[in-house]
Amino acid sequence: MNRNGNAIFDSSLDTYLQNAQKNQLDELSDWLRIPSVSTLPQHKADVERAAEWLARKMTSVGLQNVEIIPTAGHPIVYADWLHAGDDAPTVLVYGHYDVQPVDPEEMWISPPFEPTLRGDDLFARGASDDKGQLFAHVAAIEALLATSGALPLNVKFLVEGEEEVGSQALADYLPSETEKLAADVCLISDTHILAPDQPLIIYGLRGIWAGEITVRGPSQDLHSGMFGGAVHNPNQALSALLARLHDSAGRVAVPGFYEDVQPLTVNERTALAQVPYGEAELLQETGVPAAWGEEGFTITERIGARPTLEINGMWGGFIGDGFKTVIPEEACAKVSCRLVPDQQSSAIGPMIERFLKQIAPPTIEVVVNTLQHAPATVVPLDVPEMQAASRAYNRVFGVEPVFSREGGSIPIATVVQESLAIPILFMGFGLPDDNLHAPNEKLHLPNFYRGIRVGIALMEELISSCLQCGNGAE
Amino acid sequence: MNRNGNAIFDSSLDTYLQNAQKNQLDELSDWLRIPSVSTLPQHKADVERAAEWLARKMTSVGLQNVEIIPTAGHPIVYADWLHAGDDAPTVLVYGHYDVQPVDPEEMWISPPFEPTLRGDDLFARGASDDKGQLFAHVAAIEALLATSGALPLNVKFLVEGEEEVGSQALADYLPSETEKLAADVCLISDTHILAPDQPLIIYGLRGIWAGEITVRGPSQDLHSGMFGGAVHNPNQALSALLARLHDSAGRVAVPGFYEDVQPLTVNERTALAQVPYGEAELLQETGVPAAWGEEGFTITERIGARPTLEINGMWGGFIGDGFKTVIPEEACAKVSCRLVPDQQSSAIGPMIERFLKQIAPPTIEVVVNTLQHAPATVVPLDVPEMQAASRAYNRVFGVEPVFSREGGSIPIATVVQESLAIPILFMGFGLPDDNLHAPNEKLHLPNFYRGIRVGIALMEELISSCLQCGNGAE
Repeated sequence: MNRNGNAIFDSSLDTYLQNAQKNQLDELSDWLRIPSVSTLPQHKADVERAAEWLARKMTSVGLQNVEIIPTAGHPIVYADWLHAGDDAPTVLVYGHYDVQPVDPEEMWISPPFEPTLRGDDLFARGASDDKGQLFAHVAAIEALLATSGALPLNVKFLVEGEEEVGSQALADYLPSETEKLAADVCLISDTHILAPDQPLIIYGLRGIWAGEITVRGPSQDLHSGMFGGAVHNPNQALSALLARLHDSAGRVAVPGFYEDVQPLTVNERTALAQVPYGEAELLQETGVPAAWGEEGFTITERIGARPTLEINGMWGGFIGDGFKTVIPEEACAKVSCRLVPDQQSSAIGPMIERFLKQIAPPTIEVVVNTLQHAPATVVPLDVPEMQAASRAYNRVFGVEPVFSREGGSIPIATVVQESLAIPILFMGFGLPDDNLHAPNEKLHLPNFYRGIRVGIALMEELISSCLQCGNGAE
Repeated sequence: MNRNGNAIFDSSLDTYLQNAQKNQLDELSDWLRIPSVSTLPQHKADVERAAEWLARKMTSVGLQNVEIIPTAGHPIVYADWLHAGDDAPTVLVYGHYDVQPVDPEEMWISPPFEPTLRGDDLFARGASDDKGQLFAHVAAIEALLATSGALPLNVKFLVEGEEEVGSQALADYLPSETEKLAADVCLISDTHILAPDQPLIIYGLRGIWAGEITVRGPSQDLHSGMFGGAVHNPNQALSALLARLHDSAGRVAVPGFYEDVQPLTVNERTALAQVPYGEAELLQETGVPAAWGEEGFTITERIGARPTLEINGMWGGFIGDGFKTVIPEEACAKVSCRLVPDQQSSAIGPMIERFLKQIAPPTIEVVVNTLQHAPATVVPLDVPEMQAASRAYNRVFGVEPVFSREGGSIPIATVVQESLAIPILFMGFGLPDDNLHAPNEKLHLPNFYRGIRVGIALMEELISSCLQCGNGAE
């Protein structure tokens, strides 16, 4: 129902949504053609173009006060529609228009910035993470304003261009604009559901620490035939240090790493055990010969509820074709940790550095450099907005969503929680095999169109929650 | 003395050599401008240009039967001068005109293919390894033919363009042309001496095995937030495997690696102890904070007389600027082993693979791929040619050369020994800090000019040896 008690999905809206699909797909494809890779300086202008594209689209659908807010990094895009009245609730929709790099580019079946339809899937970098999922909400607004000229509640959009590189600009902006951004609930569609027909609500996201480990040896590259065996090779020394970051039981071996980690409660383990995902699904999805991880925990617990440490990249010496008998002056690794509630994200870098310096031999030097860190996010399960989200999914998918914690991190979510003091609804439409951050990222189009309907249904259910609990514009 | 009993270094030759220095430097610089990087396909035409440059120069100095011999890889250059008579000895001069890659190019103070003079040093890729050292012998021939119209003995040049990538073409060619290449001694100037004023004769070179270790995990890159902690990260698995290739005493931990290694004799250890090179020199030269290596062996023994295993390159995952939270589908390392006499170079790859497969966890797959292998070379110290080489150095440097085994490998030397059954004189003019295979490779010019004189003196001393032992053209 809307504020006047009418069901939102009347037949004119339904017909509109049926007819709009081709146009929605074409427009999303236009946006996906802009290579807004936030981490690569050579794409800075592309990132700006992607922000401008979004701002134009927001204006054209009838959103107001559209702003491209310059920052020290990439711009933030803001827009709102605030005519539902003071007693109607306000939803803050968060998303990001930046994307991950595409390498290894040769592994893409179709070019990453040439959106290509194969079956029901649209392949492009950013298709799922996060342009496609964010665009679903813009399309939902467009549909409502086009068919009824109004929205049932107030809406604010806050879209950044730095999610893939740490959200620094938004983390600076948000706490200083709490009045402008004030809302009753935050909606984030930047996660995946379990399967095309099984929605999932994330109630916890891990935090993150990311940094670089550098091992330095000789003052410059040496000939390995002339100095090998008498000089500690930084590649070898780094390998030995990296090998010590986990113990044989798959635990992170950095002293203090688990100190603030709370044991999982029986209730939580029971809830996570309901998630229909285990070793068979993991092997099927990833192609690994066997699962790996911390002893004593299930796959779902390892991925979503336990902290981890991963070596995302490492390099040293000659890595081209052919051969070069060299001892490199240094070797490096990019490492990231996913953190659970109560872990201090700022403490992880120094903790790793202390450990590595302690075990490093005197033949090399090791340093650890923090690139980014943010604590974990947990959303209480018993707030009415969470029930509204559940009903919205159920209406469109015809099945109750599963509740789970999630392995990934959306560091800005913590900032939203802390600055605006509102619950966050993580309602994604992506799929586990969408190849986020990997070659051949895709968006499953039936879920994209369902996502638009879930966005609309959520507005109705939030009104309904609001009417039930009487907390309209509190 | 030459064959007629006249001293070679008469005043006209001496004056010629004094006056020729600028021209020799200019010509060498021209050659160094050609980026003949044999391992990189994009430089194939440059490698050919470098061969053509050498052939033209050889023709112009009066060498004969100059040939550019096409091969499946890069061409071989041959030339000779055979008018000293059947009873005069024949020297086969080996060298290579190909060079190592230049990366990391940003570490070069001046561009690698713009030869640049700073003080007494000429900086360029290939300045010392091996264009400069080979060119010294061409310049020696030029000086003798220009001043006297003849050489005191017969000379053959055999110059390849694949030394830095395994010498495959020459290894195929040499055994089939033993009559054409027949000689009494082989001269190779592709090694270094101890210091500008301390010549060194290498009587042993280690063999080599080089290959790649690949660890494969998931069937494609995964998001480390979504799968980290439940999938064995190939970077982590590779690090753990690489860390097991050495034990805590600096020994190679691959079972069987030392099985065929003979213990060093007391005589040999005594001889190696004479080499004035220890930990202080190593630290000074390399900038490492401390020496490293196999317990129970001196620095000189570790470098020249013991087998080693080095990780020359390794990489996996995201290695660009910024950050990407990825679990890569595979991680790789380029590894080379230096081998001592009696080790079977063909056995090393399978030995490493067997060990790694045995210790690898079931969560990943590991494969080892051999790129190149060749056994070690040892030259007997008591042949008259070795004494001639010693006297030639002494005449030009005014000091006796030190005899030592060397850590590097010149795999083709073994092929020369086996195909032609002649001793090899490893008489280098490079210096330990010439930055071979590294940025800012250089040639110390005073030694380049001395190298030309040593080449001339060696001809005279070989004649003298030949007269003494009566083994002229045996």
